Amino acid sequence: MNVLAKAEAGVTHAELANAIRFLAIDAVEAANSGHPGMPMGMADVATVLFTRFLKFDAADPAWPDRDRFVLSAGHGSMLLYALLYLTGYPEMTIEEIKRFRQLGSKTPGHPEYGHTPGVETTTGPLGQGLATAVGMAIAERLLGARYGGDLVDHRTYVVVGDGCLMEGVSQEAITLAGHLKLSKLVVLWDNNSITIDGAVNLSDSTDQVARFKAAGWDAWHIDGHDPQEIAAALSKAQQSDRPVLIACKTQIGFGAPNKVGTHGVHGAALGAAEVAATREKLGWTAPAFEIPGPILAAWRAAGARGKVAREAWTARHLGEAATRFDSETAGTLSPDLAETIAEFKRAASGANAAQATRVSSQKTLDVLAKIQPNLLGGSADLTGSNNTKAADMQAVTPVDFSGRYIHYGIREFGMAAALNGLALHGGFIPYGGTFLVFADYARPAIRLSALMRQRVIYVLTHDSIGLGEDGPTHQPVETLASLRAIPHLYVFRPADAVETAESWELALQLKHAPSVLALSRQNLPVVRTAHKAENFSALGAYVLREAPGERDVTLLATGSEVSLAVKAAEQLAAQNIKAAVVSIPCFELFAEQEPGYRAAVLGQAPRIGIEAALRQGWGAVLEPQDFFIGMTDFGASAPAADLYKFFGITVDAIVQAARAAAGHGTVS
Amino acid sequence: MNVLAKAEAGVTHAELANAIRFLAIDAVEAANSGHPGMPMGMADVATVLFTRFLKFDAADPAWPDRDRFVLSAGHGSMLLYALLYLTGYPEMTIEEIKRFRQLGSKTPGHPEYGHTPGVETTTGPLGQGLATAVGMAIAERLLGARYGGDLVDHRTYVVVGDGCLMEGVSQEAITLAGHLKLSKLVVLWDNNSITIDGAVNLSDSTDQVARFKAAGWDAWHIDGHDPQEIAAALSKAQQSDRPVLIACKTQIGFGAPNKVGTHGVHGAALGAAEVAATREKLGWTAPAFEIPGPILAAWRAAGARGKVAREAWTARHLGEAATRFDSETAGTLSPDLAETIAEFKRAASGANAAQATRVSSQKTLDVLAKIQPNLLGGSADLTGSNNTKAADMQAVTPVDFSGRYIHYGIREFGMAAALNGLALHGGFIPYGGTFLVFADYARPAIRLSALMRQRVIYVLTHDSIGLGEDGPTHQPVETLASLRAIPHLYVFRPADAVETAESWELALQLKHAPSVLALSRQNLPVVRTAHKAENFSALGAYVLREAPGERDVTLLATGSEVSLAVKAAEQLAAQNIKAAVVSIPCFELFAEQEPGYRAAVLGQAPRIGIEAALRQGWGAVLEPQDFFIGMTDFGASAPAADLYKFFGITVDAIVQAARAAAGHGTVS
Repeated sequence: MNVLAKAEAGVTHAELANAIRFLAIDAVEAANSGHPGMPMGMADVATVLFTRFLKFDAADPAWPDRDRFVLSAGHGSMLLYALLYLTGYPEMTIEEIKRFRQLGSKTPGHPEYGHTPGVETTTGPLGQGLATAVGMAIAERLLGARYGGDLVDHRTYVVVGDGCLMEGVSQEAITLAGHLKLSKLVVLWDNNSITIDGAVNLSDSTDQVARFKAAGWDAWHIDGHDPQEIAAALSKAQQSDRPVLIACKTQIGFGAPNKVGTHGVHGAALGAAEVAATREKLGWTAPAFEIPGPILAAWRAAGARGKVAREAWTARHLGEAATRFDSETAGTLSPDLAETIAEFKRAASGANAAQATRVSSQKTLDVLAKIQPNLLGGSADLTGSNNTKAADMQAVTPVDFSGRYIHYGIREFGMAAALNGLALHGGFIPYGGTFLVFADYARPAIRLSALMRQRVIYVLTHDSIGLGEDGPTHQPVETLASLRAIPHLYVFRPADAVETAESWELALQLKHAPSVLALSRQNLPVVRTAHKAENFSALGAYVLREAPGERDVTLLATGSEVSLAVKAAEQLAAQNIKAAVVSIPCFELFAEQEPGYRAAVLGQAPRIGIEAALRQGWGAVLEPQDFFIGMTDFGASAPAADLYKFFGITVDAIVQAARAAAGHGTVS
Repeated sequence: MNVLAKAEAGVTHAELANAIRFLAIDAVEAANSGHPGMPMGMADVATVLFTRFLKFDAADPAWPDRDRFVLSAGHGSMLLYALLYLTGYPEMTIEEIKRFRQLGSKTPGHPEYGHTPGVETTTGPLGQGLATAVGMAIAERLLGARYGGDLVDHRTYVVVGDGCLMEGVSQEAITLAGHLKLSKLVVLWDNNSITIDGAVNLSDSTDQVARFKAAGWDAWHIDGHDPQEIAAALSKAQQSDRPVLIACKTQIGFGAPNKVGTHGVHGAALGAAEVAATREKLGWTAPAFEIPGPILAAWRAAGARGKVAREAWTARHLGEAATRFDSETAGTLSPDLAETIAEFKRAASGANAAQATRVSSQKTLDVLAKIQPNLLGGSADLTGSNNTKAADMQAVTPVDFSGRYIHYGIREFGMAAALNGLALHGGFIPYGGTFLVFADYARPAIRLSALMRQRVIYVLTHDSIGLGEDGPTHQPVETLASLRAIPHLYVFRPADAVETAESWELALQLKHAPSVLALSRQNLPVVRTAHKAENFSALGAYVLREAPGERDVTLLATGSEVSLAVKAAEQLAAQNIKAAVVSIPCFELFAEQEPGYRAAVLGQAPRIGIEAALRQGWGAVLEPQDFFIGMTDFGASAPAADLYKFFGITVDAIVQAARAAAGHGTVS
C-alpha cells in the first residue's frame, strides 16, 4: 500500500523529511535570504502528504484531475521547491534550487504561478492562498457535477500559517467553504506559535479549531512531527462530509538546536554555525545541495506514484464529454461569440430608451450565457444591483453544484480570490460583481489576478457620483485611477449598451488578463447610434464624432460622460466651434495601439478630458495645461442629477471649457 | 432607576421604539431612497440602549468620557439620525430628517464623521465600523491606564449587521479585541437573517456565537424585540471580563405587515400603501415626521440623562492631570518638536554612512517618542522590518495598557481601522506599519482615514523593487500611484534621513489629514548634506541641486532615486550638461504651493522623472513627451542591485536620457 515501503525499503520517513529540510536550509544559506523555519517545521507533514496521499504525477503538472497543492504560506517557498525537485517536476533542477531568489531562476522568493511548473497559484500575500484554494475546490465540485467522478475527482490541499489565519480574508474563505460544504478541501495549519514579531500570543488568542468548527468545518489537532498521526489525519479527512482543518503542532526551524521554536528562524538564513549544528543534530552528513541516492530515488518514486492513476484517467477521458471537457477547461470561446455580440449591438444601437450600463451588461450576459457554458457568474451580495445574474443562470447550493451562479456573500476579497482559484483551476470563465468603490476590499486579489494573468472579470457597478444618495463612502472618485495603475488589468468604462457589449467581448477574448467593467447605475442614452459590426472598443479609444473640418477642440470622455461630450459638441457646433468627441472605453487598449493611430485620434487641437472621477491616470492623453472636467475630491450624498450639477460635470461646463480652449472665452 | 419611568410615565417602550421606526420610514419615503428595514428591526434594541444604558449627554456630543455608539451597519443611517433627533443633539432638527439624502443636509445616505454631531465615525463600507470601534475601545483602555477611572471610564457599543460579520475585517477586529480582552466593548448584532440577495443562508452558515467565543468573547442570543431581554443582556454585558456579542434576533422591517422579514425592505422605500399598513399595524396615528409631544419629551429626557454624570466628570476634571489630559486628547504637539527635528537633521546631514529610510524613521521615532507622549506605535507583525518600535516604547498587553506600542498581528486592515478609531477617540497620534505593497490590504480603511480627515500615520516600508528577493508579490510598483490617488492623503517618500525627519514632522503637523511614509529597505546615502533648519519637504518639492547656469535638463526624483539623480547630475556636469535635481518628497504638498514657486522649481528645461514605480501620477509635473525612468510592469525576485540594473533604473540610464533630452544624444 505504501509505495515507498515497496520501492525503497530502508529509506526512513525522517530521511525523506530531512531532504526537504536541508534543501531549504542550504538554499536560504546560499541566497542569504529567505525563510528556512517553515519548511523545516512542515517537512514531516509535506512528506506524508506527497509520498502517500497527494494525487499527482510530477511528469505531467497540468493533468486536469490532479490534486491541487497550495502553499498559502508562500514565504516558505523552499518547502514547495524542495518538493518539486525531489519528486522530479520538469524544470526544477538542483541548479534552480541553488539559484534560489536570483534573477531569472525558477525559484523566486515567493512561488509564482506561470513561472514554475507545479506552482498552482502565486502566494506570499497572506491568506490569499487559502481563499484561492476555495475557488479551486469550488471548481472541482462544479466540474464534478457536470462531468462526473470519472473525469473529475480530486482534492485541494492547502498549507497555511498563523499569518494566513489572522488575515481577514481567511474568514471569508472558510465561511464560504463551510457553507458550500467543500468536503474535498483540506487545510494543513502549520501551528508553530511563532510570527515575525515573536510568539503568536503577542497578538492573538484565537481558538482556531473552534473557529473553523463554527464555520462548519471538521477540525482537530495533531502532532505535526508524527508521521503516523499525520497519515491518520489525512485518511480521516478523506471521509469527512465537510472541509477539514488539521491543526499540525510543529516546531518552526525543527532540527536547528539553538534557533528552533524562535522567530529568529522565520525569515533569515541560519548562519554557518547553526547549519552545521543542525546537520549534526539531524544526522545529515551529505554536503550542501546533495541528496543521497536512495533518498532521492525514494522521492522520485513518490513523484511517479500518480502515473497509474493519470493513465487510467486518460483512458477514461473519451468521447463527446471529454471533448467538451477539454474545450471548457481550455477556456475556448464560442464560435458564435462575434455574431452574438454583433446582433446585440445592432439592436442596442437602434434603441431609443436610455439604459444604465449595468443593465446593458445584464442583457449582454443573458445572451452570452446561452452560448458560453463555462461562463460562471456571481456577486458579493449585490446580485440585483450589479445585474450579474443572467436569465439562464441557476444558483449553486451546498447540495447542487450544477448551477452556474454563486452567491458569494458579503465577501468581496474572498470572492475575488475565489475567482482567481476558479480561473486557475480551469473549466470556467468566472466573473463577480460588487460596487466599484468596493474594489478596494478586493484589491489584493485583483492584483494577483493581474500578476498571474488570469481571465477574471470584475463587474463593478455604481461607478461614479452617478450612484447618487449613498454618498461619498460609496462613490468612487479615485478607484478608476487606482485600478488603471495595476499592470495587465484592463479597465473598461463603456459609454452605452453598444460599448458594454463590446467590452464584454473583449474581456472574454483577453485570455491572459483580468478585466474590470465599470458600469453605471444611472441610465445613459445610446451614443453609438450607427451600427457597425467592428468592435471599436478594441481600439481603446476612437473618434465617436468627428469635427466638421479642422478641429478646434477635442473632447475626450469615458462611460457616462461620453453623452455629455456629444451634447456639448452639438451645442459647440451651433456656435461654430468644431469639436471632435473621442470615446475612451479602455485606456490600456488605447496605449497598445500604433502611435499613428493614437496621434490621429487625439489630434492636434487642445483637449478636454471628461470623467466623473479624479484626473490621475489621464497623463498619457492630456498635457498638464489641458482642461479636465471631473472630480477633485470625494463626492456627496444627494440625487445623482444634483451631484453632477454641484460638482460641475455638465454640458455647460464642457461647452465653456471648450470655448476657452478653442480661444473663444475663458473658464471662470 | 429608569429615568423614563420617572420622567414620562405613560409613554411605553413600543411608542419610543415606534418613533424611531416612523422617522426612518417617513424619511426614506420622502427621499425615495434609503434603508428602512434595519432601523425598523433594531429600534427596540436602540431604544433600550439609548434610554437606559448609553452614557451620553446630547447637549455635549464631544464630552470625552461619553460612551461611543457606532453604527457599523451604516446603511441603517436613519436609525442613528432618528436617535440624534429624538434625544436632542444639536443641529439634528426635523428639517434635517426631512432632507434625508439631499445635498448639504446633516442626514447623508451613510453617517459621515465631522459632518453631523453625534456621528462617531463614518460607516457604510461594511465591517469597518466594528473594526474602528475596536480602536476606540483600545483608546479607552490606554487612557484609563494613564488617567484612571475618574477621568476615563466609558464603553463602546457597536451595531453590526450580517454584512459586517461576513466581511473579513470583522475577524481581524474581533480577534484583536478578544486577545486584548476589551471588556467595555459591546457588539449588538442585528441578526435578521436577511441580506440584499435574500436569506443569509444563501451564502452563509456560520455559527456566529461560537465564532465569537472562539475569539475570546462572551456571546449569547436574545430576542431583539423584547425590551426586558435586551435590558438584561446589556446589564449582563457590563459584568463581563471580555468583549461581548449580543446576538439580537430581529425581524427586518419590523411592523411592515407585508414586507417584514424580506430583503424587499432592506434597501428601498416601503411605498405609500405599505407605509399606511405599517402605521395601522403599529397603531401609529401621527402624520409623517411628527412625533407626539409626550413621546418626544420622553426621548428628550433620555437625551439629557447623562447631564449629571457629565457635570460630575467636569467637577473631577481638575489639576495637572486634567491639563495633560486635555492637551493629549486635543492632539497638541510638543513645543520642542521643531527643535528636536532640527537637531536630528543637523546630525543626519553630517552623517557619512548610508542608511535605509526605515532606519532613519526609527531613529526619528526614538527622539519623537521622548517629547510626544501621545504618539502610539504599532505594526502588523513587522516590527523589526518596519522599524516602528521606538526605543522607549513598551508593548501593550491584555493586562497592561500603560505601554504605547501595539502588536496588531497580521491584520493590516484591522490595524488601519483601529488606527482610525484611536484617532477619532482622541488622546493619541497613532501610527502603524506594514510593507508598502500591503497598503492594498488596508486600503478601505486608509480611504476612510482620508474621508474623515484623521491624523493617522501609515509607516509603509520596503517601498520598491529595492526590497529585493521577496519578489513581485512584495514589490510595490503601482502602490504609490494608488495612494496618491486618494484625496486628502499625504504620501511622503523621503530621500534620506533628513527628509525622513522632515516628513515625520509634517505628518504630525497635518492635524486633519492622514499621511503615508514610504520608506526604503535598502541603505541610501545622505543627499541633504548641508544642514538647514527650514523644512524643505514642506514645499513638497524643492531644488536640491541647481544647475550652474541655465538648465539643460531637470531631473525630478523621489525617495531612493534622488541619490541616483544627484550622481547623474555630477556625471552630466563633467560632460558640460547643466542638470538641476529636484527632490519631490510629497506631490500633494507641492500641488498646494503657489504657481510661481512650482514653475520655478520645475523650470523650463526638458524634464526627466525618476522613481522606481510606475509613471501614473506624474502627470502634474511631466509632459506626455518627457522621459520617465521607472517601472513599467511588476517586479521580480533578485537582490536589489540586480533588479535596479535589470529594470534600467540606474545612473547611466539617467545620464543617457538627460543627454537625449538636452539634445546631446538619443535614448536607445
